[in-house]
Amino acid sequence: MAKPLRIGLVGYGFMGRAHSNAYRQVNQFFELEHRPVMAAACARNEAKLKAFADNWGWESTETDWRRLIDRPDIDAIDIGSPNNTHSEIALAAAAAGKMVLCEKPLAMDGAEARRMTQAVEQASVPNFVWFNYRRVPAIALARQVVQEGRIGRPFHYRAQYLQDWTISPDLPLGGATLWRLDADVAGSGVSGDLVAHSIDTAMWLNGPITSVTGMTEIFVKERALQDDPSQTKAVTIDDACQFMCRFGNGSLGLFESTRYARGRKNYNTLELNGEKASVYFDLEDPHRLQYYDHGDVGHLHGWRGIHVTGFEHPYMKNWWVPGCTIGYEHTFINSLADFLKGLETGVPSAPTFRDALHTQLVLDAVLESARTGSWIDIDYAD
Amino acid sequence: MAKPLRIGLVGYGFMGRAHSNAYRQVNQFFELEHRPVMAAACARNEAKLKAFADNWGWESTETDWRRLIDRPDIDAIDIGSPNNTHSEIALAAAAAGKMVLCEKPLAMDGAEARRMTQAVEQASVPNFVWFNYRRVPAIALARQVVQEGRIGRPFHYRAQYLQDWTISPDLPLGGATLWRLDADVAGSGVSGDLVAHSIDTAMWLNGPITSVTGMTEIFVKERALQDDPSQTKAVTIDDACQFMCRFGNGSLGLFESTRYARGRKNYNTLELNGEKASVYFDLEDPHRLQYYDHGDVGHLHGWRGIHVTGFEHPYMKNWWVPGCTIGYEHTFINSLADFLKGLETGVPSAPTFRDALHTQLVLDAVLESARTGSWIDIDYAD
Amino acid sequence: MAKPLRIGLVGYGFMGRAHSNAYRQVNQFFELEHRPVMAAACARNEAKLKAFADNWGWESTETDWRRLIDRPDIDAIDIGSPNNTHSEIALAAAAAGKMVLCEKPLAMDGAEARRMTQAVEQASVPNFVWFNYRRVPAIALARQVVQEGRIGRPFHYRAQYLQDWTISPDLPLGGATLWRLDADVAGSGVSGDLVAHSIDTAMWLNGPITSVTGMTEIFVKERALQDDPSQTKAVTIDDACQFMCRFGNGSLGLFESTRYARGRKNYNTLELNGEKASVYFDLEDPHRLQYYDHGDVGHLHGWRGIHVTGFEHPYMKNWWVPGCTIGYEHTFINSLADFLKGLETGVPSAPTFRDALHTQLVLDAVLESARTGSWIDIDYAD
Amino acid sequence: MAKPLRIGLVGYGFMGRAHSNAYRQVNQFFELEHRPVMAAACARNEAKLKAFADNWGWESTETDWRRLIDRPDIDAIDIGSPNNTHSEIALAAAAAGKMVLCEKPLAMDGAEARRMTQAVEQASVPNFVWFNYRRVPAIALARQVVQEGRIGRPFHYRAQYLQDWTISPDLPLGGATLWRLDADVAGSGVSGDLVAHSIDTAMWLNGPITSVTGMTEIFVKERALQDDPSQTKAVTIDDACQFMCRFGNGSLGLFESTRYARGRKNYNTLELNGEKASVYFDLEDPHRLQYYDHGDVGHLHGWRGIHVTGFEHPYMKNWWVPGCTIGYEHTFINSLADFLKGLETGVPSAPTFRDALHTQLVLDAVLESARTGSWIDIDYAD
Repeated sequence: MAKPLRIGLVGYGFMGRAHSNAYRQVNQFFELEHRPVMAAACARNEAKLKAFADNWGWESTETDWRRLIDRPDIDAIDIGSPNNTHSEIALAAAAAGKMVLCEKPLAMDGAEARRMTQAVEQASVPNFVWFNYRRVPAIALARQVVQEGRIGRPFHYRAQYLQDWTISPDLPLGGATLWRLDADVAGSGVSGDLVAHSIDTAMWLNGPITSVTGMTEIFVKERALQDDPSQTKAVTIDDACQFMCRFGNGSLGLFESTRYARGRKNYNTLELNGEKASVYFDLEDPHRLQYYDHGDVGHLHGWRGIHVTGFEHPYMKNWWVPGCTIGYEHTFINSLADFLKGLETGVPSAPTFRDALHTQLVLDAVLESARTGSWIDIDYAD
Repeated sequence: MAKPLRIGLVGYGFMGRAHSNAYRQVNQFFELEHRPVMAAACARNEAKLKAFADNWGWESTETDWRRLIDRPDIDAIDIGSPNNTHSEIALAAAAAGKMVLCEKPLAMDGAEARRMTQAVEQASVPNFVWFNYRRVPAIALARQVVQEGRIGRPFHYRAQYLQDWTISPDLPLGGATLWRLDADVAGSGVSGDLVAHSIDTAMWLNGPITSVTGMTEIFVKERALQDDPSQTKAVTIDDACQFMCRFGNGSLGLFESTRYARGRKNYNTLELNGEKASVYFDLEDPHRLQYYDHGDVGHLHGWRGIHVTGFEHPYMKNWWVPGCTIGYEHTFINSLADFLKGLETGVPSAPTFRDALHTQLVLDAVLESARTGSWIDIDYAD
Repeated sequence: MAKPLRIGLVGYGFMGRAHSNAYRQVNQFFELEHRPVMAAACARNEAKLKAFADNWGWESTETDWRRLIDRPDIDAIDIGSPNNTHSEIALAAAAAGKMVLCEKPLAMDGAEARRMTQAVEQASVPNFVWFNYRRVPAIALARQVVQEGRIGRPFHYRAQYLQDWTISPDLPLGGATLWRLDADVAGSGVSGDLVAHSIDTAMWLNGPITSVTGMTEIFVKERALQDDPSQTKAVTIDDACQFMCRFGNGSLGLFESTRYARGRKNYNTLELNGEKASVYFDLEDPHRLQYYDHGDVGHLHGWRGIHVTGFEHPYMKNWWVPGCTIGYEHTFINSLADFLKGLETGVPSAPTFRDALHTQLVLDAVLESARTGSWIDIDYAD
Repeated sequence: MAKPLRIGLVGYGFMGRAHSNAYRQVNQFFELEHRPVMAAACARNEAKLKAFADNWGWESTETDWRRLIDRPDIDAIDIGSPNNTHSEIALAAAAAGKMVLCEKPLAMDGAEARRMTQAVEQASVPNFVWFNYRRVPAIALARQVVQEGRIGRPFHYRAQYLQDWTISPDLPLGGATLWRLDADVAGSGVSGDLVAHSIDTAMWLNGPITSVTGMTEIFVKERALQDDPSQTKAVTIDDACQFMCRFGNGSLGLFESTRYARGRKNYNTLELNGEKASVYFDLEDPHRLQYYDHGDVGHLHGWRGIHVTGFEHPYMKNWWVPGCTIGYEHTFINSLADFLKGLETGVPSAPTFRDALHTQLVLDAVLESARTGSWIDIDYAD
């Protein structure tokens, strides 16, 4: 019988739904030693919390995360609440000896992320950050291609994460889904929300970034408040962020992210060019990896559109049959399966808090560079 | 509180999994009056059935479908077993006054489909056939485009359903997944398995097909038996099937299906060309609808790749956020949600058994034409 | 020094322009023994002919093609006039011992094509038909892939040639560019204009078609006359034509052509599926060949988009540098270069009149089948 | 009758061919007051020059460009020789009162470009720079979309120009085609060769760039000499160049160029995102413009792939028929036609020397920034 792993989830927003779904679904599709038990969901608004818990099958609710952490029946704390709450909850959970899973970005800045990392490491508790896009099968296949040595000497890495949902100047500040526009709650704008994903994937595929120069922009400088449209407030988060960098392996990097690219919905792309081969991915076509192999016969060279839905592809033997796609939610289920396998094998699944700390340090450097206009070297040492 | 709807499922194969998943997931994502209860799963192999039921959370098991139908606590029978079992189970379920959901193709031929249709209609029980691809959001959007009158006078409809998984002559006959190659069990080859989907979608979008001329082919004429590889058996199902037709609305049709198209995995395409606009869809890019509108400004005419992931698109407001895709399994969940809404509203959701009967009559005509080499008119009258 | 080859061109329409351009350009890009000399252009309308000849640099003009053929300074007659004139001119040119190049389709029907073929063969004059799409580099690469044995046992061939320029019922009958809608002049509609291309390419890549069943349709049954819009005339050519067939090598074929596919401009596609590999081409992306190779490493299988612009690709070393595309007109220049190389080597370049005769015989069978509703076997014997 | 415009061309390399072809072809396709006469070709290597002149039909040859300029029968000097020769020839031609057409990049740096610009302006001679990609019909259509006001407030502009032809470390330095790797001759690497194109197009579509921060890299630091492979020499040109910028209109820019992007052949892309619409272009699909219009009906939003081959599209009515593509060489013919129309109308066709000077000033700033690591403001004032 599978061992129960009793989960306490903080937050019932969009990520609360995605994580809940993962807990419900993982054991039907993956053979695992552990079976997550949806023990308790936690949030301040009790009525909404109840409805959420009922819908998803959480056994109990708490309105104070401290009580959740105090409960001896909880094995793992999953933090899905806004960014400015991550640190305090994680530190308390680690102190209580609980495993900690945390939504990305890990923290409001690198200093906070470092304290969180030290806390979970000193407490020796399993820890994990939900950079779910690593578990898109096509991105996992890109990683496999790199690991197999097919790329050769790397020259270029580039990534875009473009959306268009905040273009309208009429979009208000505040509200359930709009905390992402408030720097006090989100820490940053697209840099923490989107660029963090791009950096996490980039360093997973291409190793550490060593220096950066960045820039940010706020296109709509003030917006009406959602709760009181007669009032406006200055927008403090970055609407767009782009940076150039060097990787430790000698390759050049170029990153761009925005919520002002009309027509781009979830355009999260990556491309790695090496001496022997290249890979390209676009999240708007999530089931494909584009691959170019210089080793192909001369007149038959071309970018291959790999339909990453075969049994031989990462994660796909756990799902349906070849040719059948999975969707956005499955990246969370795959992530959870990997985290649980890490518990089985004793080899922690990445990204851990430490991996996410590194991403946060790059983000810090990008934002500092955006302020100063200069290149910044990144120091990953503790 | 949602009304329980107690389900008895027959079959634990690939479709058994897909349906089970739908029952588990539908109420988290759709607001519905009914809540399916996974009351009983039924199959002959008790050990495998137990494992299946445990994995998916079926409350009980039965090894004889007659006993399942006899159970007064079961409201609806869902038939996911091989094609040659559909009729007997459906007739018995209807006679017992149960709702009947049935996998496609509905029957082994039109005559059988007609008896099944008459049975459910005479018993006045809700009935539904899992032609799940109608619930791909992009295909549902194509239907919406047609309903909105955007196509104008239709000229051409074409559909392909191409796969490549049976090319190897070493693939044996028989076994759990290979009953699809056995005419006694499957009724037909690609015609029932793949062409049936194409016809169902075609007639939903473009109305009835009135006459056909078809051809079929068996490329690998005999295969070893899976259970005893020293023996071979003649392959009796069609490896490939293609036909030309006329629709009642005056447009021409062209259909092709095969499991011998190297490189095509789940290449289920459709295209409808009308005087004012065209639509194109390919299941290998399931989240896109291609749309061409002659009403666009002259120099800006072009095929639009609609990323069917917005809140304004069919089914998508029930899932995640714009830009986030759903996958294969969601077509079953969407289908189930529609069936349940049909119960609520009293307007049965299509395709009913009668709709599926019409598809079966077209298939019969295609196969007869393939034998005789002549055009066949189709008579839909009872 | 290159040997002059003195050309007499009949017709100054669209094909007259395309051929003239080929004569002007071929020697700058191909090293050839012969240099075409634009000796004389011929047409009935003297004023328009003069302007045409001036523009393109034809040395002289003739208003009667019989005089052109009589001229001893002319080595080759190039027939670019409407279809119903091809036969008489070709027979006379052959009788006069001239080489004959002829636009496609070769003739009004198979019987006429047979007489023309016998004439050029009995006269032993070089002969050539401008099925220019064979010389799209990507299609030539598809042929090379076949010749290299990469496809394996062929299963399926399919081709579409879809356009949308005659949809408007207001388009009149007659006029310079609209003779294509007049059966007396064009012989047939899309079948001769478009399907002929598809068949020529198909048989070049996949061998002879042995039996067919076809259908045609006229969507707009009558149209106003261009010269007198108060009068209408019945449309006699086929607006759309589709057929199914069997090839001599055991594969199945499916062909479709229309001028009523809204949004398709020059959508001339082909796909060949074999046991080992597949190729796909679409003339709306003329510089790409899609290629799928089952021999690729398992997890890296995918359709390769080959950008057919490298020095290693057919014809491309004669043009610019890798990555730089050529266009529509170059298919004529490449064709001419091949014809001239055939003169050099003594190995006639295909398609000859005999090749084009075979295409005409398939067309005849398709049209007969469309009338009778039955399958027709094709007899290529003289 | 068309007025003769007697051309003297300097250089017989790749650009010499492209320009020669343009002179030969322009009058067959465009109605123009002027008819270029291929009066004289000029280069130092007399034997090669003769062969070139014979092939293309140049009436005479010169081995000293000073003599060419001295010839009173020459109206226009066309400079197609390596970058380090442009200035001296252009200054002399202007002093002699000749029109000057010059290949891009205009000069070795901004200072040189400024002297050349002042020279042609003071001499009041027509002047033109062959930034041929402006005359890709799809890019011209992008410009038209901008001019029509369809984009709205611009937020982002990004451009890539990626190739892969210098990856091999075995590629030697020097030789006819490899002067591009020698800084003394080329001035710079990808920045002058590729980025110059990207900047020219960007400022044409989106207005002036006001500040930049850039970086460059040399991946292969030394290479063998082509003439003496036993010797190696340091590579001095940039293998890769990328920069971030701000435009005067408030939008952000991101540019990247390299010859080390495995699989990218002529991947010259641009994207402009505005409040109301976006455009995207990729030179590897030269006949398409991608266009997204926020004004479309909500559920039918999508990127349109405009097949820029209709009579209503820029330049296309001069070529063949809708659906038929043109190629690389036609961008030069279209450029020449525009230059000649500028002579007719008295409104000089862009890009003039002054336009190209502005591009050079941006390039200078990018390269300076790459050295200093700081942002540089650009001053366009004389």
